[in-house]
Amino acid sequence: MNSKQPDNADAGKLREIARKAREASYKLAALNTGGKNRLLRELAGLLEQKTPEICAANAVDMREAEDAGLSGAMLDRLLLTPERLAAIAGGVRHVADLEDPVGRVPDGRDLDCGLRLFRRCVPLGVVAAIYEARPNVTVDISALCLKTGNAAILRGGGETGHTNRVLAGIIRQVLLRNELPAEAVQSLTDPGRAQLEALLRLDADVDVLILRGGAAMQKFCREHSRIPVICGGIGLCHIFVDKSARQDLALPVLANAKLQRPGVCNSMETVLIHADIAAEFIPKMLAYMGSRGASFHPDAGAQAYFPADCPYPVRPLAESELEREWLTPDMNVIVTPDLDGALWHIRRHGSGHSDSILTENMETAERFIREVDSAAVYVNSSTRFTDGAEFGLGAEVAISTQKLHARGPMALEALTTYKWIAHGDYTVRK
Amino acid sequence: MNSKQPDNADAGKLREIARKAREASYKLAALNTGGKNRLLRELAGLLEQKTPEICAANAVDMREAEDAGLSGAMLDRLLLTPERLAAIAGGVRHVADLEDPVGRVPDGRDLDCGLRLFRRCVPLGVVAAIYEARPNVTVDISALCLKTGNAAILRGGGETGHTNRVLAGIIRQVLLRNELPAEAVQSLTDPGRAQLEALLRLDADVDVLILRGGAAMQKFCREHSRIPVICGGIGLCHIFVDKSARQDLALPVLANAKLQRPGVCNSMETVLIHADIAAEFIPKMLAYMGSRGASFHPDAGAQAYFPADCPYPVRPLAESELEREWLTPDMNVIVTPDLDGALWHIRRHGSGHSDSILTENMETAERFIREVDSAAVYVNSSTRFTDGAEFGLGAEVAISTQKLHARGPMALEALTTYKWIAHGDYTVRK
Repeated sequence: MNSKQPDNADAGKLREIARKAREASYKLAALNTGGKNRLLRELAGLLEQKTPEICAANAVDMREAEDAGLSGAMLDRLLLTPERLAAIAGGVRHVADLEDPVGRVPDGRDLDCGLRLFRRCVPLGVVAAIYEARPNVTVDISALCLKTGNAAILRGGGETGHTNRVLAGIIRQVLLRNELPAEAVQSLTDPGRAQLEALLRLDADVDVLILRGGAAMQKFCREHSRIPVICGGIGLCHIFVDKSARQDLALPVLANAKLQRPGVCNSMETVLIHADIAAEFIPKMLAYMGSRGASFHPDAGAQAYFPADCPYPVRPLAESELEREWLTPDMNVIVTPDLDGALWHIRRHGSGHSDSILTENMETAERFIREVDSAAVYVNSSTRFTDGAEFGLGAEVAISTQKLHARGPMALEALTTYKWIAHGDYTVRK
Repeated sequence: MNSKQPDNADAGKLREIARKAREASYKLAALNTGGKNRLLRELAGLLEQKTPEICAANAVDMREAEDAGLSGAMLDRLLLTPERLAAIAGGVRHVADLEDPVGRVPDGRDLDCGLRLFRRCVPLGVVAAIYEARPNVTVDISALCLKTGNAAILRGGGETGHTNRVLAGIIRQVLLRNELPAEAVQSLTDPGRAQLEALLRLDADVDVLILRGGAAMQKFCREHSRIPVICGGIGLCHIFVDKSARQDLALPVLANAKLQRPGVCNSMETVLIHADIAAEFIPKMLAYMGSRGASFHPDAGAQAYFPADCPYPVRPLAESELEREWLTPDMNVIVTPDLDGALWHIRRHGSGHSDSILTENMETAERFIREVDSAAVYVNSSTRFTDGAEFGLGAEVAISTQKLHARGPMALEALTTYKWIAHGDYTVRK
């Protein structure tokens, strides 16, 4: 297969999918909040009712994934149980309960020319999403798109094909029951690269492409997509332990950031330690974190502070690993001469997700806040809070690590845009 | 020159420019509002003081443009006079007077976990802009970027090379006088395609690319840019004359939209006429608009209503012209059976800029507002108002025709993003 020109059959099929999604989006945009919420509650009910069918399809995916040798962590993401399905259905009901951003009027004014001008919050139109092999995301994104009146084109990880096909069928059933076009939510289950490339060219009918999942896939899509993309969920998060930090309190923060759930994007990859406290703090950190399961990757400067007989796993840090999301209890350890060194490192190697400083010096904290160019910047806190639910947003589409449109946890509002509306009396410009 | 791989010298030079812009952006972001405003007022003064030097450089550009056979409209855009320069300097002072969006806190809350969370409005970082051969835009965008603490990389039309070089020199002088890096505003004056392609790959250090100017250039950049782009200023604007419209009042609105300033993006290209009034309205429109200089391009349906001996220029509309920005007194005339036909046409052929309905039927107006998917939707008004100054925004970077980040006239706020800031007390996630 040629990597530049997806074959025409794929391209044509995808264009048709997008065109139908666009048509459907006009119907969705015309729904009122009550109608959308009824739809979501029906969907929640049907998901519960169809639990055996969904779990049976998921069992096929699980079997194939096991045969393909997927890791335990990936299998766990893929697995649906009746309990997990009940939680997913509960999540859909929760989205129904959230305030509808569509129709809000953020501002307006009467112009001297006589026009009455205001902005109205409207759906984006057609949202495409590419995401990892987690079937709950299929339901989550569908619910968030329906709530905001957007049509959705979903491309979940290939390993979830059977489950996603059943989930998409259930969503379609709810749409049809409500006299809405089935194409309002379409799930792509062909995992091929040709389909992906064809998808990236659908700028005529797709308004935004949301990217979750692996860094390599995101890079490829950013480089080749004609659709505006929102990248999310690549977390190279740092914590800088300043010389003034309270070291006894810093240790549980590092443990929380690294070890509570290493496989998520807001966990810490790298601790930066002020040189003035390195000799004192590093041995304490090795004992505290090592006894809780951490593995250490010190850079050349930090190695000097590691005992030769360190009882925990230690392997010198390779330059290439500085921008690797470990997703495991591995952590990089770097000694930095001062705040400037820490800022330089984060700017150079961070992913703009979440970074934290532990310090008692408020001036240092203020500089860190101002100069670290990330979606979330913390003072004296774990990085693990960067999350739509934790931030009180009620929902999360993705965690954006770019600056346009939405930054950090993206909630319902990020799935909307606005239009300017002006009423006149056959008004002309002077 | 290979169109896929810009040569390495260009690419390397551009990367260095972008890297220095990124460094400079950190200094700009640290400026307070007073400091930025002083800088802008100094710039306005120096522009006035250097009027002879700027006009001399502009005369060289004008001479070369005349030799190259540029159109009168393009020459007029290129020309700087002492009066125009005074207006440009006045515009810079006006930007200094505007409220600074940077530092605003749109919202915040105390979380149950103990974190104090808020969002703070911050500069985007490094803004690149590609724009038409209008030297005033060089100063406008520089001023707007400096006001919002962004570094700028500017690529104006090749025809303004001499003028832009002098303007960039003046901006650099003001930056250096204020102990700021000269690389905060950099102007690219190599018009080659290789440089453009290298620019589009600078996603590591450029946060947004603003595209003004020709449709073909915008399409190329949208397809090849790795930097998030904001497209603006392509205006295929429609007015739908509903059967209930007050025809005597509709005529001056059409004349204003088409003829007041045909060369701008918010002027009308196509009038859509409800079939029920076509026989009555079209002859009146031909007389009113024709006597004021319009040329007509009727589609097959509209031609039936044109007299054989029409005294004004008439040429049947070619399908390909439906998506052509005329920028002249030419206008397309289309008869549509009903509102649905008009909506279909606008969705299919519009550019999402500005569209208007003339009607006395409020239900029809409401459907038009809801279903036309454009940045600005008007009822009983000319389309000519879509403009930052007219909308009361005080400034305009571009008029976005896309939905992400900013839509319609983009003012200072569109040059900012936000970061989430959280203060804790060595807080960990449960």
